[in-house]
Amino acid sequence: MAQAVQASIGDSEFDRDTAVTLRAPGVYDAELSPGWTIIRAVNGGYLLALLGRALGDALPHADPFTITAHYLSASRPGPAEIRTETVRTGRTLSTGQASLLQRDEDGTEVERIRVLATYGDLDTLHGEVRTSARPPAMPPYEQCAGTGDGPPPPFSGSSAIMDRLAIRLDPATVGWVVGAPSGKGETRGWFGLADGRDHDPLSLLLAVDALPPTSFDLGLSGWTPTVELTVHVRCRPAPGPLRIAIATRNLAGGFLEEDAEVWDSADRLVAQSRQLAKAPR
Amino acid sequence: MAQAVQASIGDSEFDRDTAVTLRAPGVYDAELSPGWTIIRAVNGGYLLALLGRALGDALPHADPFTITAHYLSASRPGPAEIRTETVRTGRTLSTGQASLLQRDEDGTEVERIRVLATYGDLDTLHGEVRTSARPPAMPPYEQCAGTGDGPPPPFSGSSAIMDRLAIRLDPATVGWVVGAPSGKGETRGWFGLADGRDHDPLSLLLAVDALPPTSFDLGLSGWTPTVELTVHVRCRPAPGPLRIAIATRNLAGGFLEEDAEVWDSADRLVAQSRQLAKAPR
Repeated sequence: MAQAVQASIGDSEFDRDTAVTLRAPGVYDAELSPGWTIIRAVNGGYLLALLGRALGDALPHADPFTITAHYLSASRPGPAEIRTETVRTGRTLSTGQASLLQRDEDGTEVERIRVLATYGDLDTLHGEVRTSARPPAMPPYEQCAGTGDGPPPPFSGSSAIMDRLAIRLDPATVGWVVGAPSGKGETRGWFGLADGRDHDPLSLLLAVDALPPTSFDLGLSGWTPTVELTVHVRCRPAPGPLRIAIATRNLAGGFLEEDAEVWDSADRLVAQSRQLAKAPR
Repeated sequence: MAQAVQASIGDSEFDRDTAVTLRAPGVYDAELSPGWTIIRAVNGGYLLALLGRALGDALPHADPFTITAHYLSASRPGPAEIRTETVRTGRTLSTGQASLLQRDEDGTEVERIRVLATYGDLDTLHGEVRTSARPPAMPPYEQCAGTGDGPPPPFSGSSAIMDRLAIRLDPATVGWVVGAPSGKGETRGWFGLADGRDHDPLSLLLAVDALPPTSFDLGLSGWTPTVELTVHVRCRPAPGPLRIAIATRNLAGGFLEEDAEVWDSADRLVAQSRQLAKAPR
């Protein structure tokens, strides 16, 4: 049996599904793939990666350092347009803005997402590393729960994205699967892409929004739509699976925050994110 | 002696210095006050509050829920223009964008700051409060260090903003004043406005950027200019001083993050912020 060629950065499902095509100065065509949906929603991290790719092309600097998205209305699989604006260019940093637009059934153009971001070159960051944060305490990969283990997810509808991700969850954070949430509001897991592609700054944007919501671990059911998501990409990730630790500490007034830390195989804290989401009703 | 009238929300230095005047649809005039500078830099939180006030006027919803600013170039005391754009309006949330512009000496218009934010009405948030975060462990107000105590700040130049703030710092986080930083990268303190004005959502935007930088507690000297700052305002603050706890856990590659939590007198976590800043050279 011929050995399957492992996907690589630039040649993978993720790259094909986040590809953008320049159509006019600063304007890109994209196709939102149905492959990255959870239930009917196109995953917010996938969308951020798509927008991130467009901005990286439009700006003089290639890597998102800090990127914020406001999710205005639900995106749908299908054609989309990304309009970018260069806000400022500098020697080491550039700032840009981007909008993701789609047409409704009646042809009306609707803005789905607006992004504001500052980009740089991660390969020029040579300052000392004095990270006092520590990787999450979590069982090794083999002892974490794969999505094939245990009961099916407690929600109906497409989980197409799950076919594209290689996730193993810390058992301490998935009690909700059997009706026993810990109540702590935490999600932890190992994260990779199913086709074996290594991570890069853009897949980090997917990673911070690709684990089950912490609301499940709080004993809440129902979705937590993201209002805003901000990601800091601090380091190019080393090859191999990422460890992601997500926590909610301020569920209040119908909203909650999710803080994610993403660690690579070299124990670097490669990305930090925070999102504001609506709590389930 | 006549008793001085205490400032109140709407009638205070902070309100006067963050006032905006509508000049054309979505366009506001503002005056950046020299009273909110530290050394020569106009404080980033003060600028965010100014922009936040303009957006609150421009949008159908008055309170910033999540607001992100990218600081593009150094603002200077003097006239400024704020241009707002309404991105989306909804029943409970609205999203807007704003730019702060000034003219250089040769008359060229330069964008200083760009903001993207989603606003709502804090008074409509009635969901349960299940905040697992806890207020910072810190000495009571009287046992914290006022800016009048101890040696003068280890930096020269104007500290005009210090005259407008009533800050008391946790002694455990100001060892740097006497050359003995803890190395933990933390700042904690009690925070109020010098004229006694109570806090509101806009002064929270000032508060998250108004304490000494955590870099001092890391033993670094020199400034840490903010690249991007995102604030979540989660609750209208109760009257009385705020407690602010700031921490840096990922100083790496010439950048650092500062995470701030702001607690009010009712022990509510009223705001959370994260900024990405350049580490001192």
